[in-house]
Amino acid sequence: MRVGVVGLGLIGGSLALRLAHSASNVHVVAWNHHDNPYTKAKAQGIECVDSLEELVHSDLDVLFLCNPLKVMPHILHDISEYGLPEKTTLSDVGSVKGLVSQQVKEAGLYDQFVGAHPMAGNELSGFVAADASIYDNALWAVCVDEHTQLHRFMDVITVITQAVDNTCIVLNDEVHDKAAALISHMPHVVATAFINEIVDDPNRNIAALLAAGSWRDMTRVALTDPDRTRAMVEEDAQNVAQLLRSISKRLLAVADNLEEKDMTSLVEFFEQGNPFRLYKSGAVQNLVQQREFVADSEHWQQDLLDSAKKGERIISISLQNDDQIHAQAIQYGGIK
Amino acid sequence: MRVGVVGLGLIGGSLALRLAHSASNVHVVAWNHHDNPYTKAKAQGIECVDSLEELVHSDLDVLFLCNPLKVMPHILHDISEYGLPEKTTLSDVGSVKGLVSQQVKEAGLYDQFVGAHPMAGNELSGFVAADASIYDNALWAVCVDEHTQLHRFMDVITVITQAVDNTCIVLNDEVHDKAAALISHMPHVVATAFINEIVDDPNRNIAALLAAGSWRDMTRVALTDPDRTRAMVEEDAQNVAQLLRSISKRLLAVADNLEEKDMTSLVEFFEQGNPFRLYKSGAVQNLVQQREFVADSEHWQQDLLDSAKKGERIISISLQNDDQIHAQAIQYGGIK
Repeated sequence: MRVGVVGLGLIGGSLALRLAHSASNVHVVAWNHHDNPYTKAKAQGIECVDSLEELVHSDLDVLFLCNPLKVMPHILHDISEYGLPEKTTLSDVGSVKGLVSQQVKEAGLYDQFVGAHPMAGNELSGFVAADASIYDNALWAVCVDEHTQLHRFMDVITVITQAVDNTCIVLNDEVHDKAAALISHMPHVVATAFINEIVDDPNRNIAALLAAGSWRDMTRVALTDPDRTRAMVEEDAQNVAQLLRSISKRLLAVADNLEEKDMTSLVEFFEQGNPFRLYKSGAVQNLVQQREFVADSEHWQQDLLDSAKKGERIISISLQNDDQIHAQAIQYGGIK
Repeated sequence: MRVGVVGLGLIGGSLALRLAHSASNVHVVAWNHHDNPYTKAKAQGIECVDSLEELVHSDLDVLFLCNPLKVMPHILHDISEYGLPEKTTLSDVGSVKGLVSQQVKEAGLYDQFVGAHPMAGNELSGFVAADASIYDNALWAVCVDEHTQLHRFMDVITVITQAVDNTCIVLNDEVHDKAAALISHMPHVVATAFINEIVDDPNRNIAALLAAGSWRDMTRVALTDPDRTRAMVEEDAQNVAQLLRSISKRLLAVADNLEEKDMTSLVEFFEQGNPFRLYKSGAVQNLVQQREFVADSEHWQQDLLDSAKKGERIISISLQNDDQIHAQAIQYGGIK
């Protein structure tokens, strides 16, 4: 299997290293916008090429776009110009899926595309920080729709579950981006609102002196580069806006309850999250279940999405008789 | 110096141990609502008495109330009944100050009271978890108003800075409770709103699978006992309600900006917290300054509050010629 990687940053570089060291027989070809990482990458068995055009014409099964989102339209335009071979399936590793799909469509490459998003990374960046182990036990979201070609989906799934030795869930762009807004993009805005609140407070230094664990944890993500956070939020603007309105509604209801001394509603508010508390306590999380199922070849996208909704992780998918999709899934329990 | 402690839980027990082991000559007398901790406490040099009445009549300089807030009115009523000796200054260690002051007033003990709140603790509870080291380098908020008697304030400050070897800031109840609402009580409500949001989401298990560091940190405080969190929030209801409205206003403005693609306002929102980022990065925090100042004997409360507003910690206060207040303060820099 031949896999291409555009961009040897933290995520792309680590993926290239992981694939080059894979127990599966994978040949990795990479291109980076400058050749600084090439000496080290070549020493790790990664073939490095001098141009994106050369990479596109490297007889690849799958090509992963691991470049920054802001240069994505430019990269896609160039790939389209060079002519992506019919054999090659295009994928990516971006944290917002809807926007990338739209850009891929605009470049006329959507027929060959299956987007992905690995839950991997750390606060570092660049190939100097790249490390195959950031993919240890990682979960990938793979995004499909009714137009996704089954054999291209299988190409990407095979790289993830076999070559990278990871698990995945199968979503569509909309579900992915809403979930990412809930667990990451919206919380980043709230953390930022917190630090803005303290900066505006005439007693900010008193508050800062009294601050302990709860404040530290809830503002940590606001301390990273505000421009990068803003870009991430803008890319998922509609979902983030909707969640900000929903959270505000909850907070204003509590403000009303506190002022009206509505103790019944306050008890309800504080107990409503109990299913999540139970899940996090491990009482639910530790119930490991494994099952094998056959996805309907007409509605395989929906069958796999339904599996994800239960909280199952796919550990392998195989195609039998060309269109029978056999999936092995594992579940650590979910939020009831 | 003779110091009394009501309640040998985590905070009271650790304070009693700290005082018993103090380099200053402190005799500690404690009463707990059951005598389970007495054997261990006595072995550490703490005198344990059989009743609250006996404690009140133990010739104390300062008596610290370290009992749960919910039994505070009952404890205060009993102390009043037994007759608190004129010599004894009453203090406490509660995390909400306005409510306790009001209860102390209702018990007719306010002339002898100076409230306090040490920034110390952990997730454990009870005397089994008590440990003098939880007070290492702790900061106390000491709350005063225009009625606070200077010699009683000096009694409490002397225990904190000399016997416990800690620093303090001098506030009033209102400023304390507003700051505590900002850095702790309001964030607890927001963390709870987050977990309620995920529980209400039809794709909650997908979101939970995708969740990483930002979600984990921002919901951590929602995982503790919801009843305890609710009680804390209810005790500081007005301040929390006001902050929830302020945070909601900020979040709704961002939602508007995202929907209207108002990039200028979004840039402003994400950069507004930069003074806090600078403070946390240590660029400001590491500027250590020390100064000695004399607080005006007519307006010492305001002079000390002004010091706290700058982000100064008081390391010692002494009284000269009976009414000249000399304070030594240290500052690690503040939010500009």
